[in-house]
Amino acid sequence: MARSSNLSGFPEWLPEGRLVELAVLDTARRIFELHGFSSLETRSVEPVDVLLSKGEIDKEVYSVRRIHDDGSAEDSLALHFDLTVPFARYVVENAGRLDFPLRRYQIQKVWRGERPQEGRFREFTQADIDIVDANELAPQHEAEMALVMAEVFSSLPFLPPVRICVNNRKILEGFYAGLGVADPAAAFRAIDKIDKIGPERVRELLRDDAGLSEAEINSVLALAQIRSTDTSFVESVRALGVHNKLLDEGLSELAAVMKATAGPSSGVIIADLHIVRGLDYYTGTVYETFLEGYESFGSICSGGRYDSLARDGKTTYPGVGISLGVTRLVSLLLGREMVRATRRVPAAVLVAVVDEDSRDISDAVAGSLRARGIACEVAPRAAKFGKQINYADRRGIPFVWFPAGVDDEGDSVKDIRTGDQVPADAGTWSPPDTDLWPHIVAASDEGAP
Amino acid sequence: MARSSNLSGFPEWLPEGRLVELAVLDTARRIFELHGFSSLETRSVEPVDVLLSKGEIDKEVYSVRRIHDDGSAEDSLALHFDLTVPFARYVVENAGRLDFPLRRYQIQKVWRGERPQEGRFREFTQADIDIVDANELAPQHEAEMALVMAEVFSSLPFLPPVRICVNNRKILEGFYAGLGVADPAAAFRAIDKIDKIGPERVRELLRDDAGLSEAEINSVLALAQIRSTDTSFVESVRALGVHNKLLDEGLSELAAVMKATAGPSSGVIIADLHIVRGLDYYTGTVYETFLEGYESFGSICSGGRYDSLARDGKTTYPGVGISLGVTRLVSLLLGREMVRATRRVPAAVLVAVVDEDSRDISDAVAGSLRARGIACEVAPRAAKFGKQINYADRRGIPFVWFPAGVDDEGDSVKDIRTGDQVPADAGTWSPPDTDLWPHIVAASDEGAP
Repeated sequence: MARSSNLSGFPEWLPEGRLVELAVLDTARRIFELHGFSSLETRSVEPVDVLLSKGEIDKEVYSVRRIHDDGSAEDSLALHFDLTVPFARYVVENAGRLDFPLRRYQIQKVWRGERPQEGRFREFTQADIDIVDANELAPQHEAEMALVMAEVFSSLPFLPPVRICVNNRKILEGFYAGLGVADPAAAFRAIDKIDKIGPERVRELLRDDAGLSEAEINSVLALAQIRSTDTSFVESVRALGVHNKLLDEGLSELAAVMKATAGPSSGVIIADLHIVRGLDYYTGTVYETFLEGYESFGSICSGGRYDSLARDGKTTYPGVGISLGVTRLVSLLLGREMVRATRRVPAAVLVAVVDEDSRDISDAVAGSLRARGIACEVAPRAAKFGKQINYADRRGIPFVWFPAGVDDEGDSVKDIRTGDQVPADAGTWSPPDTDLWPHIVAASDEGAP
Repeated sequence: MARSSNLSGFPEWLPEGRLVELAVLDTARRIFELHGFSSLETRSVEPVDVLLSKGEIDKEVYSVRRIHDDGSAEDSLALHFDLTVPFARYVVENAGRLDFPLRRYQIQKVWRGERPQEGRFREFTQADIDIVDANELAPQHEAEMALVMAEVFSSLPFLPPVRICVNNRKILEGFYAGLGVADPAAAFRAIDKIDKIGPERVRELLRDDAGLSEAEINSVLALAQIRSTDTSFVESVRALGVHNKLLDEGLSELAAVMKATAGPSSGVIIADLHIVRGLDYYTGTVYETFLEGYESFGSICSGGRYDSLARDGKTTYPGVGISLGVTRLVSLLLGREMVRATRRVPAAVLVAVVDEDSRDISDAVAGSLRARGIACEVAPRAAKFGKQINYADRRGIPFVWFPAGVDDEGDSVKDIRTGDQVPADAGTWSPPDTDLWPHIVAASDEGAP
């Protein structure tokens, strides 16, 4: 096979990189399940019209068709660009067979035909949680989304500090309406760019594209600069002197989120009034998340409340969700060499083979170890022991097992990092807990194995 | 959103069904890692020409393109139809950064535009293991593939009995050459259908399509009927009186597999000389796996040795692999109602809420339980306790926790199956191990919770 070049925007990791990704995925799943979220998957494709009706025309969608398509009238299909739109469709389709409120997590790939750049991919993995109820969704779930994700981040000790920023679309919409802004959508688009292009360029956009007066621009930018780790943002907004009923509603909803998250995740979850979120379907609370020092990389965990994404003739299913951008996060950790795996393979032990005739003895040792949950490989060739030790060393496998027969003293196991070799019984010996499986540590963590 | 109908061939499970799938996936992964296989994923798309060059023209491939494609000369892409071809491409592309022999497992979705029917889907999940080496692959890995999968199956106690059937393409090719069959490919295609259409119709195909003489047909069908749980198949083949060097090679390779698997998986792994495997790239040992009583459903776990799928200018990377058809297996288990989950959600405990003002007390209880690995939900509404108990009951959550304040006696927990309610401390109480997580049992297993 010809050596094909990498496809831009379709990342693939080496085994060490995949271990980092697995650490993120496994941690997210464990926290999600501890919080009672059920796993779900939806198919990768949706009818094109379902996807395009969700206001995602600027997110490029990939269409899918059989190469040997005979032109028959099959549905026109496309790969999903997020997990929220398919989940909403799934909820409506299966409403009669689901229990509401439904708590689900969903970890799958999504595809967007955007121009690849740092942190932005054409195929990437998301890990979402959502809670959807029939007719009415209890408000405490808005704080819950941020709290669960904060727990995921705090369970990944190799991450830099994280800030989960929360805002409420009603604050933005109410404030802009109260100001009398004529084209709020254009103003949202401008504010949404503030992290990328800075407030001065946003000021130009607000004037030239959105047609705001100088006074309006000053108010809008002042709102976007409000940040607080508690409910004091309410006072700061009030001080701007804009009055509007929807604004009041948004302020009280965001205050409720900040109150509920104050104790458990103090300082990690903050009210940040410049957060907009591009997607049309959000109607209230919205989230974006940044790694401190890597804000330009973009949000690694975003979402919001959507009150009318899922509905059938009779019922509306309001929901709230948040989505961890696993591929973006992992690409940052790997690209900046912030983390490393303690070894490259799952095996804790390499069982040496004395000669090919006694391979079954080595296989039996491996079987005993595995039966007690110890991952191991059997050496692929009965080479000289030095070569077999090299095989383990190259992969970071910490222990090499020598079956009886090598000498008269029975089985022994060698820690190849220290050179210590001790007699051992495959039915009882265990490695130290820290050596049982590979794990991920901060690259700066020199003390780790 | 309009209620869209299901897309044929793109299965989606309800939460209970997904629990069955997760049980299969988690078990496979654990066994794979215990045997030292590293996790890998490849991108979902490949250049169309890479896929079509692998002799898969009869497997319909899905092409992928951006809806807003501007006609620029981008690679023509398609969704992969298996995990072996992408893995071979990955190995060649990254050979300089991988350790050989490379042991990897890969659990991903694949897509085929075939006509959907029972057990045959357009999108489905496979769980593959492969071992690939540079230049030369040690023969013991051929037995190893079957042994690892046998361990996966024996770790899924709710499955019906499994038969992993092993053959060797060299036996077929050598035998046919020794017979003097003019068009062996046509004969293979006929023999490959024996499970579906029976030996009498295969006899017709061998005569009419493959042009075999009556004597040749008798020999070919006699070969296809040979089966043994040990190495006695060698004698049976010899008795047919066909002589050929490649046949000898195949017999000795298959005998080696049967010898190595005799002890550990006696009776599960059998030599079965009617197994062909459709894919062009297999060159030696091949596997197919059937659930007893459900043979017509097709193989649920297939693979083989491929000596020249992966190569660059200088090096060939021979490999051997086997692939568990997760979606087919799960669809059978669910469709025939062979299994059930002990509950529908991860939570073992529902923490009741006395009133909305004391929700933080319930949240704190949930936090204590989760910190000790006990999954729980907090009741979404401070409804009457009867209603909160109903919420748990509907989902199969076995325990409801009542925070202090309900009466003067402190916290208590109720097993809602028995009605037993006992005082409890969220810092120390644990459910019985069997209630900690939902698990999958045979539907006939009445005694299970």
